[in-house]
Amino acid sequence: MQEYIKADPWSIIEEGFDKELVKSSESIFSIGNGAMGQRANFEEQYSGETFQGSYIAGVYYPDKTRVGWWKNGYPEYFAKVLNAPSWIGIDVYINGEALDLNTCKKVDRFSRELNMKEGWYLRVFTAVLPNGTQVSVKVTRFLSLDLDEVGAINYEITPENADAEIKFVPYLDSGITNEDSNWDDKFWNTTSVRSEAGQAFIEAHTMKTHFETCTFMENRLFLNGQALIAKPAEHTADMRVAHEYVQMAKQGETLSLHKFGGYTVSRNHQASALVEASRTALGKAFELGFDTLLEKQKQAWAKIWEMSDITIAGDIKAQQGIRFNIFQLNQTYLGKDSRLNIGPKGFTGEKYGGSTYWDTEAYCIPFYMATKDQNVARSLLKYRYNHLEKAIENAQKLGFSNGAALYPMVTMNGEECHNEWEITFEEIHRNGAIAFAIYNYYRFTGDYSYIPEMGLEVLIGIARFWHQRASFSTAKNKYVILGVTGPNEYENNVNNNWYTNYLAKWCIDFAVEQLQKVEDGYNDDYRRVIGKTKLTDSEVSQWKKVAGNIYFPYSEEKGVFLQQDGFLDKELITVDQLPKNQRPINQKWSWDRILRSPYIKQADVLQGFYFFEDHFTEEELEKHFDFYEPFTVHESSLSPCVHSIQAAKLNRMQQAYMFYLRTSRLDLDDYNKEVEEGLHITSMAGTWMSIVEGFGGMRIVDDKLSFEPKIPEQWEAYSFKINFRNRILKVTVKKNSTEFLLNGQDDMSIRLNGERVVLKPNKLKVV
Amino acid sequence: MQEYIKADPWSIIEEGFDKELVKSSESIFSIGNGAMGQRANFEEQYSGETFQGSYIAGVYYPDKTRVGWWKNGYPEYFAKVLNAPSWIGIDVYINGEALDLNTCKKVDRFSRELNMKEGWYLRVFTAVLPNGTQVSVKVTRFLSLDLDEVGAINYEITPENADAEIKFVPYLDSGITNEDSNWDDKFWNTTSVRSEAGQAFIEAHTMKTHFETCTFMENRLFLNGQALIAKPAEHTADMRVAHEYVQMAKQGETLSLHKFGGYTVSRNHQASALVEASRTALGKAFELGFDTLLEKQKQAWAKIWEMSDITIAGDIKAQQGIRFNIFQLNQTYLGKDSRLNIGPKGFTGEKYGGSTYWDTEAYCIPFYMATKDQNVARSLLKYRYNHLEKAIENAQKLGFSNGAALYPMVTMNGEECHNEWEITFEEIHRNGAIAFAIYNYYRFTGDYSYIPEMGLEVLIGIARFWHQRASFSTAKNKYVILGVTGPNEYENNVNNNWYTNYLAKWCIDFAVEQLQKVEDGYNDDYRRVIGKTKLTDSEVSQWKKVAGNIYFPYSEEKGVFLQQDGFLDKELITVDQLPKNQRPINQKWSWDRILRSPYIKQADVLQGFYFFEDHFTEEELEKHFDFYEPFTVHESSLSPCVHSIQAAKLNRMQQAYMFYLRTSRLDLDDYNKEVEEGLHITSMAGTWMSIVEGFGGMRIVDDKLSFEPKIPEQWEAYSFKINFRNRILKVTVKKNSTEFLLNGQDDMSIRLNGERVVLKPNKLKVV
Repeated sequence: MQEYIKADPWSIIEEGFDKELVKSSESIFSIGNGAMGQRANFEEQYSGETFQGSYIAGVYYPDKTRVGWWKNGYPEYFAKVLNAPSWIGIDVYINGEALDLNTCKKVDRFSRELNMKEGWYLRVFTAVLPNGTQVSVKVTRFLSLDLDEVGAINYEITPENADAEIKFVPYLDSGITNEDSNWDDKFWNTTSVRSEAGQAFIEAHTMKTHFETCTFMENRLFLNGQALIAKPAEHTADMRVAHEYVQMAKQGETLSLHKFGGYTVSRNHQASALVEASRTALGKAFELGFDTLLEKQKQAWAKIWEMSDITIAGDIKAQQGIRFNIFQLNQTYLGKDSRLNIGPKGFTGEKYGGSTYWDTEAYCIPFYMATKDQNVARSLLKYRYNHLEKAIENAQKLGFSNGAALYPMVTMNGEECHNEWEITFEEIHRNGAIAFAIYNYYRFTGDYSYIPEMGLEVLIGIARFWHQRASFSTAKNKYVILGVTGPNEYENNVNNNWYTNYLAKWCIDFAVEQLQKVEDGYNDDYRRVIGKTKLTDSEVSQWKKVAGNIYFPYSEEKGVFLQQDGFLDKELITVDQLPKNQRPINQKWSWDRILRSPYIKQADVLQGFYFFEDHFTEEELEKHFDFYEPFTVHESSLSPCVHSIQAAKLNRMQQAYMFYLRTSRLDLDDYNKEVEEGLHITSMAGTWMSIVEGFGGMRIVDDKLSFEPKIPEQWEAYSFKINFRNRILKVTVKKNSTEFLLNGQDDMSIRLNGERVVLKPNKLKVV
Repeated sequence: MQEYIKADPWSIIEEGFDKELVKSSESIFSIGNGAMGQRANFEEQYSGETFQGSYIAGVYYPDKTRVGWWKNGYPEYFAKVLNAPSWIGIDVYINGEALDLNTCKKVDRFSRELNMKEGWYLRVFTAVLPNGTQVSVKVTRFLSLDLDEVGAINYEITPENADAEIKFVPYLDSGITNEDSNWDDKFWNTTSVRSEAGQAFIEAHTMKTHFETCTFMENRLFLNGQALIAKPAEHTADMRVAHEYVQMAKQGETLSLHKFGGYTVSRNHQASALVEASRTALGKAFELGFDTLLEKQKQAWAKIWEMSDITIAGDIKAQQGIRFNIFQLNQTYLGKDSRLNIGPKGFTGEKYGGSTYWDTEAYCIPFYMATKDQNVARSLLKYRYNHLEKAIENAQKLGFSNGAALYPMVTMNGEECHNEWEITFEEIHRNGAIAFAIYNYYRFTGDYSYIPEMGLEVLIGIARFWHQRASFSTAKNKYVILGVTGPNEYENNVNNNWYTNYLAKWCIDFAVEQLQKVEDGYNDDYRRVIGKTKLTDSEVSQWKKVAGNIYFPYSEEKGVFLQQDGFLDKELITVDQLPKNQRPINQKWSWDRILRSPYIKQADVLQGFYFFEDHFTEEELEKHFDFYEPFTVHESSLSPCVHSIQAAKLNRMQQAYMFYLRTSRLDLDDYNKEVEEGLHITSMAGTWMSIVEGFGGMRIVDDKLSFEPKIPEQWEAYSFKINFRNRILKVTVKKNSTEFLLNGQDDMSIRLNGERVVLKPNKLKVV
């Protein structure tokens, strides 16, 4: 843990310049607008340690797989999130000397602020250059939500101890490299570098995938707020274009450069029209100007917060943590485009190839469902429908047939982007999470239409997979699922992972139920889908045979389902008995030792109890929680949230609160010492769940919202909002009461601690 | 399978030039002398597909590990067999045009012969160059067994259709690369290139490991057998030195170049004296001359064959196969140097890093024990003793303590050279094979001295490992060994692999027994070892507790030990029911499918029945053989031999013969379509075992040789020799009799089919 971020309800603040923290802050202060994003790299040059990164949503490169030992079935290529051409750079020279915080004699009053309420990032400092000139600098940057191809920078410099000649050299640069490359391939091909009429453009496409992009900029100079008519000198090179503005500023005068830049991409425009589209984008931005565009940014973020904010009274760090999570999720994905998804690092780093894990279905969909229009969650479901053919191909590569679908462990375009056999081939429970999300979407939104239109085909592909993947054990006289990795990745290639088996059975049951429902209610869709999938009654009977007779490892003695066959053969020493210096085990122990230990990386059996809470009694939950949590090391960012929800349900508020803090400030306090590489975006949705489902106890029961609110003793109150079927309900939980405020026209009946409560619209209900 | 090698009892013969077969033949016709070796690359330039390889025993480079996903415990570096500077090259120009078989207008009467009886390699052909000159060429090459730093080439050319100017350019070249490199490192640093007084030298050392080498050559020219006084033009470059001889030859005249070359290395000489040592080696070779050196080569091989030949009458392919195996084993390792070992590809390729696998102990030691002086096997055991400290360090890296030793999966200098977690960390049965080899050595040779002097320490380190590696299962009330990979690598990370558990128990029992024996009989050694290892009685008691209470998976229903926990949950479909187009499964199936199938790559439970045959009844063997063999796909080169031995024991001679053929001609007939990459050297020892232990039924029973000879119906007779405790016994098995011929002075009592037989020295005994 490193705690250098100042506590503040609405802003992330760093004070003081520490070169050791530059890479961490570059991650934490990252900005994004769903379409693009970038790490909080300095605009001016910096010769110290830095991790430069700019990213464009949906732009990737299929890197040739490189492994120590090839295993049949590995994909030959692996889609990687790509570092994109950079548009933020502004070299600054003061009296002919480059401004570089790494070489300045003195850096004072350095601070960063990421204003989450309004969606901008500010950096200020005073520096004394080696040549003795002292300048104060203030840089404001944001990526527009309104014009999502455009970002804006206001770079202000004030000479403080003498008049100074200031040279700004804003530039575009496509000569970028990836931190992570398997074969040192060239990822980008720059096709044109242009500068004309004060605007600059670099057209470049990714190799192989041919995503065409145009990176652009235009700048304007101001002295003490007055626009200067300055025609820049223009410099173009192979992969770079720079404009040069030279201006004297008297001591105390402020010279500022407004830089507008960004990307247009062939996903949204004709490839041949990107420069034109860029001109249009620049035109719109310039017409508005920096200040007006920033004003609109504030409004846009206000609208997001209006719906998704969570307030916490009496615990500023918890407040800052939850807002940081909500803010980053919204920076990463806004749900406008069903071709995009929520990358595990968003726009903050490039670790992990691909963008889409089961995290989306298991963790992110509940957040987006409740805080956005329901179309956003539908877009995420549609994304998987669009990838169904590829999932079927993927299953074929692994020996399945007849339309069985196995969704990839990680993907960008539907193809598998992962190559670690025990995960890629065996962590197949991901398939179940996709089916569960379909169920969850319908349960929450009441919108059944996705299932007849798209979901049924997905469910059939998934059911076929499970049917084929299970095999019959004569010894057990049951169907078994051999050789899998469950959510707890500290077990590989195990037999009969309870969570996987349970999910497999559920997937088949759910698919069978939906087949009936669609046949009854949407007969056209039914006939279309049956025609397309060639599903027969006898096949469905075979599915049922498997689902009805699947094996669940269970210990009579312990009264719990076993994580997998043989779990009780382990040395069952609980985590609290492990010496501190042995942890985290993923850093201290060799892999085989981890595997034969009982230690659990993240909820596994308990993930099943989370998904299917209503299948089990609270006593059963308690028994399993008490059995498994003591072996859980929570070394996945996805672990604490599920445990927080269950601890809250079991009225263990101190434990629930501890898990909550760990999930909500994971990156801010750098629990895992890896924030330099980027943020853990998808687990941030788990933080939201910890409050709404955990403390708030929100569930859908009998098609209605239900709450069982609890409050950690450290808090005075907290509130959240839910978009439930286009009705906005604000819930405020205080020490001794719960308040509901419902918008709209009609009454709504909910449950509170099991009791029916009728809410009148626009009227505060205090219980 | 590709069958282009002509059947011949003593030679490997290829006839006709097929460019598609060049790389295969380069492997099959490889030559070596224990100290160095090389693929059968052409001396003259060749612009077609080729895999160039020259290798020096014990010279390696620690390549930085490159994996897709790092697992804690992986070695950072990985010793790789290195392609060494080449000394065999002779560019040839005829009337100014390069001789290159890839560009010749016509190549006729091309043949290769590897004469195994005499240890030389011959290539002849007639070629018409693009310029129309027709030449006949005959090249003889061998690596001297007497002067093991020296190889010799006699390159003879006869112009056939006109007089011709012939230019020979023999050269040395250190500008070589490795087929296999993780980070494109430079492996060799050339420090000097010299040419003086008709001799040439390149000094080069490996990067990082600093093995210093001098590659050298000297040449002599002959016309029609008469030496010419030819002072060559000398050319040196950065990593190359060449001599140039130009000579007219009349039509029908034969010009020949004798090239002597080779290596001196810092393992055997002062690094500063390598050039001097090379001069000495060249001096000796030149003094003898090509013909005399070749004569000595024939004598040296005659001596090897005298002891190690196996004859088979009535089956020329079987005869050729077994001799090829014996020949290659002797080319790879002669047992002169306990710093060397038997690499899985010998000097025929560079696949796999490292040189030493458990193959050495399980397969090679029996061959070397019975066909060489017993010091050779002792050298191989000493090799492991020398690596004990590293094995202890290796275990420490994986979390073991107190002197527990885990020998590496693959090694060159004692350090682990492998990085595949399910093998490197989990295929720990290799430790047991080392202990077994100690037992086997004593059993066969009667030489106990290795145990008090060295072996006891090894056995203690291994026993400590097993004691720590086993854990107590409360559920089973037994010690279990979780998370292992057995010899059948088509199962990974399984629990309670029977073979591993059985071996672990045996290792502890054997170590305890030897502790007592050494204490009783070699008390000085005992005190030295106890002092060094700090072994206490209470520790030994703990070992015994584990060994006495270890779990063995067993099926009452099937009456067999189970390969691992859960084996009977698999779909038990035998191999004969698999469609042909699904095999080999390691090429046709994804890895997860292989893992959850019942298919067995190589003997696993049956490997235990092979090692510990005397612990089980023949009925038990039969039951296990009948249960496991039908699931065995034999996709490891090490698989058929064990099954051949057991089939013979069970009197299933047809099956035993089929397995024998598969093992003995694996490379000659390229069963696995990979001979291009090199030969399977270590499994060749298994072929020898198939005959001697399988058909011959040789065992040691009560400290005496015992035979139960059988003969495949395809054979008329076969014979082999055994060096048993410095007595040479020749055994000839005929259809209806067995003949024994014993050398030396004294009688020897043996068993034949359980009956005692007394052999008189030098007197044929026919039974």
